Amino acid sequence: MTQSDCDQRLRVEAAYPFVQRIFVAAGLPKADAAVVADNLLQADLRGHSSHGISRVRVYCNRIRDGFVATAPAIKVINETPAAFHLDGGHGMGAVVADRAMRMCMEKARTSGIAMCSVRAGTHFGIASYYTMQAAAEDMIGYACSNAPATMAPWGGITPMLGTNPFSMSVPAGKHCPLVFDSASSIVARGKINLAEIEDRPIPLGWAIDQLGHPTTDATEALKGSVLPFGEHKGYGIALMIDILSGILSGAGYGSHLGPLWNNAESYQNLGFFLLAIDIASFRAIEEFKSQIDQMIDEIKASKPAPQVDEILVPGEIEFRNEEYNRKHGIAVGSGVLHDLESLRREFDLDTDLAALLHSA
Amino acid sequence: MTQSDCDQRLRVEAAYPFVQRIFVAAGLPKADAAVVADNLLQADLRGHSSHGISRVRVYCNRIRDGFVATAPAIKVINETPAAFHLDGGHGMGAVVADRAMRMCMEKARTSGIAMCSVRAGTHFGIASYYTMQAAAEDMIGYACSNAPATMAPWGGITPMLGTNPFSMSVPAGKHCPLVFDSASSIVARGKINLAEIEDRPIPLGWAIDQLGHPTTDATEALKGSVLPFGEHKGYGIALMIDILSGILSGAGYGSHLGPLWNNAESYQNLGFFLLAIDIASFRAIEEFKSQIDQMIDEIKASKPAPQVDEILVPGEIEFRNEEYNRKHGIAVGSGVLHDLESLRREFDLDTDLAALLHSA
Repeated sequence: MTQSDCDQRLRVEAAYPFVQRIFVAAGLPKADAAVVADNLLQADLRGHSSHGISRVRVYCNRIRDGFVATAPAIKVINETPAAFHLDGGHGMGAVVADRAMRMCMEKARTSGIAMCSVRAGTHFGIASYYTMQAAAEDMIGYACSNAPATMAPWGGITPMLGTNPFSMSVPAGKHCPLVFDSASSIVARGKINLAEIEDRPIPLGWAIDQLGHPTTDATEALKGSVLPFGEHKGYGIALMIDILSGILSGAGYGSHLGPLWNNAESYQNLGFFLLAIDIASFRAIEEFKSQIDQMIDEIKASKPAPQVDEILVPGEIEFRNEEYNRKHGIAVGSGVLHDLESLRREFDLDTDLAALLHSA
Repeated sequence: MTQSDCDQRLRVEAAYPFVQRIFVAAGLPKADAAVVADNLLQADLRGHSSHGISRVRVYCNRIRDGFVATAPAIKVINETPAAFHLDGGHGMGAVVADRAMRMCMEKARTSGIAMCSVRAGTHFGIASYYTMQAAAEDMIGYACSNAPATMAPWGGITPMLGTNPFSMSVPAGKHCPLVFDSASSIVARGKINLAEIEDRPIPLGWAIDQLGHPTTDATEALKGSVLPFGEHKGYGIALMIDILSGILSGAGYGSHLGPLWNNAESYQNLGFFLLAIDIASFRAIEEFKSQIDQMIDEIKASKPAPQVDEILVPGEIEFRNEEYNRKHGIAVGSGVLHDLESLRREFDLDTDLAALLHSA
């Protein structure tokens, strides 16, 4: 491999069966391994490599250490006409949340709206993976999860909240769906994890160190606290997501959640909250979608600020990334490639990693 | 009145029947006038005077001009096991949203979660007025509304979105409920309206003028655009609220909504989205509330940043304001007092406004 780190790109159609094989080798049923591989690669495709295959190593470690169940007993604790209370049995987050969103969607078809409150969850990847499923079925999808405490409350310095992610997706007609997906921190902590793996500095303003001072050192930031977006407003949103995801479901919350990284001691016990709204219960779906198209057209045709080329709508960059990455492969750093190669050897898989790389 | 403007305070128990009488004189049924008076005074009590009785004048003007129905035909367009689609008949926003939240709560008791999508709405005051009703009944309440376009999309300068407010409230045990209530702009536009009424400058960073330049002039800001909180994230949230409130319900959206102020030409046609989650469908309510108490205790006991006295939770400042204002009266500027006095004369009410002021 003569290209620089930044130029290494994996072909998605080749990476997918390889990642699936890794998870099957780690112990997941084939169908579940497919969901997890799809979830991670979708993140890479959309340009969020922090939530992509850079997580394969830590997911496998969690399975190896017994803190992710490969055959979880996913149980319905309670069911109402429009809601499920689910125990995820510490199964792989993507497997549990994928099932939960499908349950919501099925129920929403008759109830108009349906939700699923999930306890005993583990890291579920990008939240938009689930909300886009709803949009694909002409529904409005909402999903959020709590996360291990890495963010101080506004005015504090001790991490008491996660960078709790939330997403909402809405179907459009001629346009791509509108996909909002955000951490409640200024940036997803995964981007700082990735900077540490790749040994890069982070921009000032993303995080504070343990004493509350701004830092550009990814390792110091990971020991300290990331900052909420929009100051006290992002703090309030993170807190409310923690309640919806964690306390309502009876999962952990705040500082009582197990970390994903460097944790061979405890379950994560995350909580998820998923919701689907059946648009057809309110308006004719074609009418709704054409109005979303109109809204998008109006916003994109409005006057940009000086030095701005184009006004974007939520999810637009990600759909462009996906188009580009499907053609050119997903960007991977040497740290991630090293992880994949070491897993290949551990699981004695015969894949030639170099053959998965996109030829320049 | 020898006190300076800032020292003038109205006794709430005296102001309430007076404000109610104004709305009855303007044409509202007595019970509806009570809801609107309660909604506005609760905003003042909680310290959000921008959404309090400073709005009595414009509400009365809207009734006078025929763009708020005093006896609206509130109609259920569709009902599912967990949702209502409601036409608000251009009735007073607080009256319609109050009824909609009560309908959600009743349904949620059996369905676990219930929502109400409302079209043909008018300005509904503070969103937390409705979500706190849910919290008072041991539910999680969520409410949002769209608003006339006064905020440019991120990267733009033309107002295409409202400062769309959203609120979520959660019951606690020994503590006050957690009440998150926020505009999707850096500050509520009402605060800029109030600055204009009181002829005060606004802080830099709240808004841009018509050419996209930052401004401290309230009037220039009102002609230009307020800025979303958290940059592109607040923009995405405002957009999603516009869809949930406006497009899902079939109300107006974006730049197609009628202004509240200086508008003798059109209905507002706002949309609301209200939601209630019955906590008892998921966990024993006392267990839930005691965990919320624990969460609050843990956050408040965590280490504050240098120069910070105390870490606050959402709604805490407002409950303190309420306690103080119940005792000392709500602060009112001379512009608002002038409005109230002119309405008193127009409607030929015999109230002596000076007698409503809190004695120093």
